[in-house]
Amino acid sequence: MNEIKLFSPATVANVSCGFDVLGFCLDSVGDEMVIRKTSNKGIKIIKIEGYDLPYEVNKNVAGVSAMAMYKAANPDFGFEIEIYKKIKPGSGVGSSSASAAGSVYGMNVLLGSPYSPLELTAFAIKGEAVASQSEHADNIAPAIYGGFTLVKSLDPLEILQIPTPEDLFAVVIHPQIEIKTSDARKILPKDIPLKNAITQWSNVGSLIHGLHTNDYELISRSLVDVVVEPFRSQLIPGFESIKKAALEHGALSTGISGSGPSVFSLCKSQKTAIKVEKAVRQAYAKYTIPFDIYVSKINMEGIKKLN
Amino acid sequence: MNEIKLFSPATVANVSCGFDVLGFCLDSVGDEMVIRKTSNKGIKIIKIEGYDLPYEVNKNVAGVSAMAMYKAANPDFGFEIEIYKKIKPGSGVGSSSASAAGSVYGMNVLLGSPYSPLELTAFAIKGEAVASQSEHADNIAPAIYGGFTLVKSLDPLEILQIPTPEDLFAVVIHPQIEIKTSDARKILPKDIPLKNAITQWSNVGSLIHGLHTNDYELISRSLVDVVVEPFRSQLIPGFESIKKAALEHGALSTGISGSGPSVFSLCKSQKTAIKVEKAVRQAYAKYTIPFDIYVSKINMEGIKKLN
Repeated sequence: MNEIKLFSPATVANVSCGFDVLGFCLDSVGDEMVIRKTSNKGIKIIKIEGYDLPYEVNKNVAGVSAMAMYKAANPDFGFEIEIYKKIKPGSGVGSSSASAAGSVYGMNVLLGSPYSPLELTAFAIKGEAVASQSEHADNIAPAIYGGFTLVKSLDPLEILQIPTPEDLFAVVIHPQIEIKTSDARKILPKDIPLKNAITQWSNVGSLIHGLHTNDYELISRSLVDVVVEPFRSQLIPGFESIKKAALEHGALSTGISGSGPSVFSLCKSQKTAIKVEKAVRQAYAKYTIPFDIYVSKINMEGIKKLN
Repeated sequence: MNEIKLFSPATVANVSCGFDVLGFCLDSVGDEMVIRKTSNKGIKIIKIEGYDLPYEVNKNVAGVSAMAMYKAANPDFGFEIEIYKKIKPGSGVGSSSASAAGSVYGMNVLLGSPYSPLELTAFAIKGEAVASQSEHADNIAPAIYGGFTLVKSLDPLEILQIPTPEDLFAVVIHPQIEIKTSDARKILPKDIPLKNAITQWSNVGSLIHGLHTNDYELISRSLVDVVVEPFRSQLIPGFESIKKAALEHGALSTGISGSGPSVFSLCKSQKTAIKVEKAVRQAYAKYTIPFDIYVSKINMEGIKKLN
């Protein structure tokens, strides 16, 4: 095989109580990428459509992750990369992670799959770091593994694949505002009350138990964020209206996707998700902020081959 | 049935990363209690052996929990309670919880089992509060449910039974020193770094996943406490020596039981537990503090009927 076309999905990180460690994979939105072997050695980005991103390999997240793997594999040929960017950068659903994970996933297939998902994650983190100035795996991991993932630790890198109930759907609204990552970080306190931390780890433990036992009600009761959401939700106009509309129409939970501005709601069944999508759309219409909104099944596979 | 004799086990609360929410049930040590129906109405404690504890129903944890249930059930007969106290009060393995849970468990059987484990837990918490001045369920729940439990929340009360691997054993050492609950509380900071809180909830999530998947190595890597142990271990002379000896001889993890002074080590297999017990015993011999030490299987049933 000399060429692979793939779909690299958007992802939701943090997931309420799971700040910095949890993530899940979406299905409706993702970048498309083509990776092709070339006789010339090295990595080249030959096409970027959708958004204006750098072609220089060392400035492009997909390029940096690709180079990390390329140096490790050291093959006697090269790769060229085409990126059809569908996930808007800065929307809070893992845009850079999708590109960073996609390039190494595709190269790995063309190399005969020498690398494990954990190794792919490690390469992709290097790319992600270009965009976020620090190493994170909470969007990369669900893009590569699919379903729900928990980043147990970054050093050494350890990713847990958490069983994900079949009938789980997400509604994601993306208000078209810009939240600077630096602002999203600055707004968080360095120290938090021990009392709140206990509530949060009780919820994380309960969520993992709920995912293992397909207990949607427990998942709902556990997806509560008493630590980060009270601060970051202030950066998203209408967050409370979105949450109220979603919960009133049957969503299990609503929270900030990544560091925002996207807001996700998890729902049991596609039918409920469609209802919630409609309710959130109506609730947000009164704000003057343009927005995208979509329903997505939880993607159990992660990145998918398209050809 | 007019009389029940039962074994109400010691328990380990907190369990490293799971401060205030996790607990597990022991098998080798526990109180014995006899509960008997009487034609006179009301609750009477007629015998206490082992330790010097109050006979007044409203001052005795077993009495207070018993009264809470008695008022709710309002039967036309009474109960008398005999307590053969084997768990030393203040040792950090749920002495008061064992008594508080035992009386309501026994009464429930004699009443024809009208109450659920959750309701028994709620009654027992009322007794436990007499000893600890605040309501806690992290020792009560494992005594009643057995195995590992997670207190999802106290209000409303919600207890999760976490699957527990079959081959898990605990080694518990009880250095005979007194730690005042007030000192154990005072030494904890009100606020903790967000960074540490994230590590802790990642570990709680990973532990629950490890318990669900029988992954002993993951359980070991997850049973780490970066929040409470650094403070409270200072109150236990020789804590680091115990931990070092246990881990060097194959223990999965070592941590403070409850608020101490007991220290538990979890081990895969009885064989390893026996080795760890010997190593910890030797390591602690150099301290001039008398101690008890024992190996216990994790008790999967909780309180047991003896007759």
